[in-house]
Amino acid sequence: MASPFTINATINSFGGQFLKLTHQSAVTATSMNLTLYLPPSAAASKPAPLLIYLSGLTCSPDNVTEKGFLHCHASSLGLALLYPDTSPRGLDLPGEHESWDFGSAASFYIDATAKPWNKNYKMESYLTNELPDLLFGAFKELDSSRVSIAGHSMGGHGALTLYLKNPGKYKSVSAFAPIANPVNCTWGQKAFSGYLGDNKEEWKKHDASELLRGWKGPLNALIDVGTEDNFYKQGQLLPENFEKVAKEIGASGLQVNYREGYNHSYFFISTFAGDHVQHAAKALGLL
Amino acid sequence: MASPFTINATINSFGGQFLKLTHQSAVTATSMNLTLYLPPSAAASKPAPLLIYLSGLTCSPDNVTEKGFLHCHASSLGLALLYPDTSPRGLDLPGEHESWDFGSAASFYIDATAKPWNKNYKMESYLTNELPDLLFGAFKELDSSRVSIAGHSMGGHGALTLYLKNPGKYKSVSAFAPIANPVNCTWGQKAFSGYLGDNKEEWKKHDASELLRGWKGPLNALIDVGTEDNFYKQGQLLPENFEKVAKEIGASGLQVNYREGYNHSYFFISTFAGDHVQHAAKALGLL
Repeated sequence: MASPFTINATINSFGGQFLKLTHQSAVTATSMNLTLYLPPSAAASKPAPLLIYLSGLTCSPDNVTEKGFLHCHASSLGLALLYPDTSPRGLDLPGEHESWDFGSAASFYIDATAKPWNKNYKMESYLTNELPDLLFGAFKELDSSRVSIAGHSMGGHGALTLYLKNPGKYKSVSAFAPIANPVNCTWGQKAFSGYLGDNKEEWKKHDASELLRGWKGPLNALIDVGTEDNFYKQGQLLPENFEKVAKEIGASGLQVNYREGYNHSYFFISTFAGDHVQHAAKALGLL
Repeated sequence: MASPFTINATINSFGGQFLKLTHQSAVTATSMNLTLYLPPSAAASKPAPLLIYLSGLTCSPDNVTEKGFLHCHASSLGLALLYPDTSPRGLDLPGEHESWDFGSAASFYIDATAKPWNKNYKMESYLTNELPDLLFGAFKELDSSRVSIAGHSMGGHGALTLYLKNPGKYKSVSAFAPIANPVNCTWGQKAFSGYLGDNKEEWKKHDASELLRGWKGPLNALIDVGTEDNFYKQGQLLPENFEKVAKEIGASGLQVNYREGYNHSYFFISTFAGDHVQHAAKALGLL
């Protein structure tokens, strides 16, 4: 069977290869962009486990590819990396391109239920079902049984919620400066009211701190936040609320680090990328 | 005395700090941009040696700051990094902004002698005299007696020529995909005819392969070139000509690596950044 993916670029880096891919998604009914990093050790005879990294508001897969430097560490550990896009592209829905924190590049990785978003903005279904099915079908160098998830900011929200919604699907989760309690911050309220409508009970189903209340057993979760992150200081991230729930339910396995002097940028991400790659690598049996 | 530098941004990364600086240059008669990376160990009581990295065509100091990843390695070794700009800015000389390979962001790191460039495009004097004087005066965390130089593409040309023009000034030199014989490539011919006029004997004074003919003693030089670098394949770089002269004069201490499958981009630079930082660190007494 022909691969559903078009390879737009192949770039050597740290001994492995970035593949810039596009494919037609039946779920979003659009073309979708993604970048895959294959470490040098990946082969059909020795498939590599996969870390999915979800990017933040305004980003495409290119930002983390160029500035995140997860692949520097993943290369030597034998970990593959998947950088999906932050929303469907190529649409022109009413208001889709007017805000940097809503619409294009701001999907919040949920399945929208409100019009006009509910036809295409189905990123949760896309990321948890369609994309892995296509990817593991096309790339025999990847091990579908060993997958972890991570993300930054809006992508940290995505990583935490997909981890909590799908127990056992991801071996670990980690987040850089995640939006950890979106029902209580303006970014989340804007996104959820737009994509889900006004029923706040529906919003809670997509909020990491709310989802955590129903979690059973230990977590395998790492969170880093910079103390000079303006969005943290503005109360957009609220990792302390996530920590508080973890304590309330007595969940072990959550490590939250507040990094003195670091901001919200890729300079922060790249500095701690090695820790997050190692966190996944341990859970995936590479360390 | 007040510092001549304005600090526009301070960014924590890998335990150290990037400082985005501007200052007024008497040599170029313009404001100049640069970025300085101070490793965590740098202190007036323990000044850090400095690696000057010259960027390539079209770049500002931001490209290597965000994508070069030298600072990841420099941080733990205790090496400071200086990323100067690729030309004066804020001028509007005739034709200055019309080409991506001439004028703004394309100074070729020489002192122009032809009008209208000879008033401001004096990057060689700026980089070898004014900037280090100001920098070592303002930042006591830097050791003015231990300096190496490196660069990429046009910046590789800059690094090699400044090293060869100033024996002993820089403890080592390294270059990613340097324009190593500019008198014999179209980039160099365009730049030198514009900045220096038509006398090709003058051009040779700014050509690494020509300068090497007069070199005495061993080199301390590392060059990496990607085999899938389109500019290499087009004959813009000509590192083999530099190698040939080194053999002819019997100079030891030159290592040239051809890296299979790598292109001209920051993906190439970042992959081998560790080697270049270590090359400088050894020469500067850090390893």
